[in-house]
Amino acid sequence: MDSETVIEFAEIGQPDEHARSAAIELHGKLIKPDGSLGRLEELGVWIAACQGQSPPRPFTRPRVVVFAADHGIAAKGVSAYPAEVTAQLVGSLLTGGAAINVLAASAGASVRVVDMGVDSPAPATPSIGEFKVRRGSGSIDVEDALTDDEVRAAIRAGMTIADAEVDGGADLLIAGDLGIGNTTPASVLVAAMTGSEPVAVVGRGSGIDDNAWMRKATAVRDALRRARKVLADPIAVLRTAGGADLAAITGFLAQAAVRRTPVVLDGLVAGAAALVAEELAPGARSWWVAGQRTGEPAHALLLDQLDLEPILDLDIRLGEGTGAVAALPLLFMATRILAEMSTHDQAGVTGPKDS
Amino acid sequence: MDSETVIEFAEIGQPDEHARSAAIELHGKLIKPDGSLGRLEELGVWIAACQGQSPPRPFTRPRVVVFAADHGIAAKGVSAYPAEVTAQLVGSLLTGGAAINVLAASAGASVRVVDMGVDSPAPATPSIGEFKVRRGSGSIDVEDALTDDEVRAAIRAGMTIADAEVDGGADLLIAGDLGIGNTTPASVLVAAMTGSEPVAVVGRGSGIDDNAWMRKATAVRDALRRARKVLADPIAVLRTAGGADLAAITGFLAQAAVRRTPVVLDGLVAGAAALVAEELAPGARSWWVAGQRTGEPAHALLLDQLDLEPILDLDIRLGEGTGAVAALPLLFMATRILAEMSTHDQAGVTGPKDS
Repeated sequence: MDSETVIEFAEIGQPDEHARSAAIELHGKLIKPDGSLGRLEELGVWIAACQGQSPPRPFTRPRVVVFAADHGIAAKGVSAYPAEVTAQLVGSLLTGGAAINVLAASAGASVRVVDMGVDSPAPATPSIGEFKVRRGSGSIDVEDALTDDEVRAAIRAGMTIADAEVDGGADLLIAGDLGIGNTTPASVLVAAMTGSEPVAVVGRGSGIDDNAWMRKATAVRDALRRARKVLADPIAVLRTAGGADLAAITGFLAQAAVRRTPVVLDGLVAGAAALVAEELAPGARSWWVAGQRTGEPAHALLLDQLDLEPILDLDIRLGEGTGAVAALPLLFMATRILAEMSTHDQAGVTGPKDS
Repeated sequence: MDSETVIEFAEIGQPDEHARSAAIELHGKLIKPDGSLGRLEELGVWIAACQGQSPPRPFTRPRVVVFAADHGIAAKGVSAYPAEVTAQLVGSLLTGGAAINVLAASAGASVRVVDMGVDSPAPATPSIGEFKVRRGSGSIDVEDALTDDEVRAAIRAGMTIADAEVDGGADLLIAGDLGIGNTTPASVLVAAMTGSEPVAVVGRGSGIDDNAWMRKATAVRDALRRARKVLADPIAVLRTAGGADLAAITGFLAQAAVRRTPVVLDGLVAGAAALVAEELAPGARSWWVAGQRTGEPAHALLLDQLDLEPILDLDIRLGEGTGAVAALPLLFMATRILAEMSTHDQAGVTGPKDS
């Protein structure tokens, strides 16, 4: 890998204001009280703006890319699960029995798994290991997660994957995460990027007890101390306290925005990467919607900083992109409302009285 | 119609505790942290209990029945729309251009319209008028909405429709409402059944201004005064301050419970009927889930009284069953998670550490 790799994003354009206005105007003509579909109306308008046309097209290839990696910090007891579970779950995703497979099938989305840094001797299949940068990551309480080469390669991988998916026809993207211990580096990133204290970001992750919570808080505190020294350089923050998955998701989310492709964010891990992506590619957040609110305190902080209002609030905290996929049917409905409902003129339905 | 018609519901059984326990146990075996799908897990357990089997079956015939009627109180200026819109919208539902048609098609549900009391010379088609009890209703601020015969016929119609739908294979039911002014009687029912004051229940309905809000508050106050005199008899409350749609939905929701068929409630109108149905058929609420929270204050009161926690909170206030249908894909996902995810044993995935 080339240590001189420069990470540069093309300028981020914004969603189309003309299509946005046209969609708002169309909503006012449909046979319903204006605004009466609430958030569904706003989402339809956003989709029209992203696509640059009103009414918007139905989505034809919503795509979930799950970024898997292990984290050295898991050895410090920050998770309820042993690290070997990451590789096992990658296998389950490939055979279709994981939560994201079931939810994506129900929503009509397809799933791809990418091994960015699982701690296994070889990728579960060669194709998913194409972008793997290393096995696991450094233990971020005492050492960098990645080398400078590795973090750049991982960001570049996310960009390449986003490009390939959009070129392959994906018209809506979701980044899933899979990796035991991954909420620890994600929490550090959020604390660093939002200027928060460790206790304000440390949550229960996959369901840890009080002792593990204290170990996690200690790990976050130590890693944050290291990350704050490089705060001016978002890529250095990913190198210091992130991981190959977080770096790849960062590149993926920013490049999706470059490619004018809407994204549904899931929870803390994708959201932490989104914070970094917005730093690297300002304005990218206009292309993202938050699928859900989770109970993770760091997630609430990052949603606030990105000014994103979640669609669902169902206490989904599984990762893999599940919370984003759960919101997909609502985006499809929002799209179809604009495309298929009758207008007052078409239906011969009287509008509101002049009062 | 027979004024001696006795409205009696068979005893309401409760969802199957054995299937509920089995679903909870199954959730604990799937390859995810226990509880990490949040509300989706609870919904899956509820569906298993309703169906009496774990894992639950996929729904094959989710069905929306939209109950349409006009309300005499609309002449007092309580709505932003003229009453003729009810009949016009019935026509749009029949041709497929209404919001509920689009959302139901997106979710994979079918829609039926029933004219219970639209103020038009003849039903839009003969088949939807089979159960029509009258044109419009009395202006509830000064007179009863219905006669005793009419209210009993309407409740009976709802029961008959629920039976026919379940006999026809419907395995999930939604009651939609359609009728200019219908949030006014619904608000009176909620105030009566929850012991609330008029100002605590009067909302903006389809989007009324301050003057219309004051007219609506006056109408609710006057109708409530009349309804409180018959509070001991839920059918008399429907007769006094309800309407043919509200009475039919009441019978429909109670009979769905008799038939052990799960129901997704939409907003204020279906919810107000649900309050009455729970009085007439205690325990029926175990078969209902609240699809959404709306901004209507009376809706919050009734959800609280029925102890139902809404799935969505998207500010949908259109009626027609739209908010319930928006939640349907989440119920489908909840069902498929239990039916299709791998267990730890099947997948060879290690469980949590003993900490």
